[in-house]
Amino acid sequence: MTQRIVALAGGVGGAKLAHGLQMALDDPTMMTVIINTADDFQLYGLHISPDIDTVMYTLAGLANTATGWGVRDDTFTTLTMMSQYGEDPWFQLGDRDFATHILRTRALRAGATLTVATTSLARALGITPTLLPMTDDPVATLIDTPGGRLDFQDYFVARRHADIVTDVVLDGIAAARPSPAALDALSTAGAVIICPSNPIVSIGPILAVPGLRDAVESASGPLIVVSPIVGGEALKGPAALMMEGLGHEVSALGVARMYAGLATGIVIDAVDSALAPAIEALGMQALVTDAIMRDDAGRERLAREVLDFATTLAAARAGAR
Amino acid sequence: MTQRIVALAGGVGGAKLAHGLQMALDDPTMMTVIINTADDFQLYGLHISPDIDTVMYTLAGLANTATGWGVRDDTFTTLTMMSQYGEDPWFQLGDRDFATHILRTRALRAGATLTVATTSLARALGITPTLLPMTDDPVATLIDTPGGRLDFQDYFVARRHADIVTDVVLDGIAAARPSPAALDALSTAGAVIICPSNPIVSIGPILAVPGLRDAVESASGPLIVVSPIVGGEALKGPAALMMEGLGHEVSALGVARMYAGLATGIVIDAVDSALAPAIEALGMQALVTDAIMRDDAGRERLAREVLDFATTLAAARAGAR
Repeated sequence: MTQRIVALAGGVGGAKLAHGLQMALDDPTMMTVIINTADDFQLYGLHISPDIDTVMYTLAGLANTATGWGVRDDTFTTLTMMSQYGEDPWFQLGDRDFATHILRTRALRAGATLTVATTSLARALGITPTLLPMTDDPVATLIDTPGGRLDFQDYFVARRHADIVTDVVLDGIAAARPSPAALDALSTAGAVIICPSNPIVSIGPILAVPGLRDAVESASGPLIVVSPIVGGEALKGPAALMMEGLGHEVSALGVARMYAGLATGIVIDAVDSALAPAIEALGMQALVTDAIMRDDAGRERLAREVLDFATTLAAARAGAR
Repeated sequence: MTQRIVALAGGVGGAKLAHGLQMALDDPTMMTVIINTADDFQLYGLHISPDIDTVMYTLAGLANTATGWGVRDDTFTTLTMMSQYGEDPWFQLGDRDFATHILRTRALRAGATLTVATTSLARALGITPTLLPMTDDPVATLIDTPGGRLDFQDYFVARRHADIVTDVVLDGIAAARPSPAALDALSTAGAVIICPSNPIVSIGPILAVPGLRDAVESASGPLIVVSPIVGGEALKGPAALMMEGLGHEVSALGVARMYAGLATGIVIDAVDSALAPAIEALGMQALVTDAIMRDDAGRERLAREVLDFATTLAAARAGAR
């Protein structure tokens, strides 16, 4: 693949495939990753962008692969002192991680957009793909549960995503404008890849930013989804429980239905091969492979398959003209 | 001493005596420390108050006594990550220390005054005396040298206070208003103690805040200065070089002259006993003692002597009426 590609990503799963793509591409500068920011929040007066940070640390080779969040070998001295000041250390921010939040907040306070703050942090860490927030405007994911409405991090971290989800509300989404750089990247993209991130709270907010879904649909190349559901279970996080709560079938087919009319291809795991005919009946090609990324080699391998799939779909489309 | 006392303090030397006073007082809540904020500055978008922090950490028993700044046994992981982002780590901020600056900045951004931010941080650390900034308004010490004008921290930290000082400018001082709580404390003070801090860049700015010198002069009890110059040398920092550059005699007598008309008593070291007559000719009583605080016991011992001196001066004043 020598064309520009755009990946849409949330946190851990998205970061893994984005990392694979960074390794698989001859020229990683050809890739732009548009990242969910609907779970951004303020803590200790600092702007935290959990998904941007996970993608950034992963692509910089700094991620803590054991936990899925934060920086490898980080320490928690600042947070310990926060406790000494009587603050509740409910959200685990490491000392290295704090540097990111401090510098991002400084940039935003000085008037920079989140786009500029993100690209400059990522470049400082030597990341060659372009990392972008979906929007520079505030959007907040709110989770409705039988017990009431929760802020996303309260639901996800403090309550360990154990609540039944009855609805997901994206506060501020109607007024959010896409990051202009994200629109630019999509306008020249030869392929769009939706990483194996939660379709409801990671990819959902990106596509819900007014104008972004249109830009994805208008992109000239194929749009490939990598299913985050394998064998009827989420690879990580609350996607399965959330899909179930919102009335979606918890399967690769359920994922395919959520992207029907948008995706031209979907990557599903071999354990889900029996679902391929039903998926293809939705109007998209299915690539059946090993969809689980167990290590760096697995990330690069899956990324190469996704890129080859994109090339095949692009050629088929050109042949059909 | 059972009356309210007010101490004026800068960084390390002032913090030591304030700590001694905290130990020596039967009821440490009777003490208010008014602290220099003219060397406050912004770093990484955070509000740093070096003198407040030194006093706060010292009174909380957290100070790094080896360096004179920062928190004991602190680590520097956040700062290391700052370097990884390409930031110059010229000012040593420890991980525990960062918590202080983050929480202070959060409070200020939320609209709190520096007075409120300071008292709440100090109380969270269990400090019973009241710690106050001299002002809630921005004041910046600028140092004129033969090579040009320097920001204070550039002069003090980056250039290790090695430059000759030709003038000291307090940018913003004319518009600065005293912390209202500081005026309150002075209005009920039975004694004011000027700690052994740099008379030019620590105590000078406090007394230069419009209205604060008047409030000190109007305080009902004695005003005692503890000389930061012993044997013609500064106990710590650039006071000697600075006094010399600005035309002051570098001696306890030089210090006494700077406070003539304000101080009713001065504490000088035994090595300077020969200066006592000349000092007393300026209109203040001199207490000759061991003015060096070598350890916690030394701090408490000197503090008790200062408090006894204050009691004696107050009684003499009452007798003279």
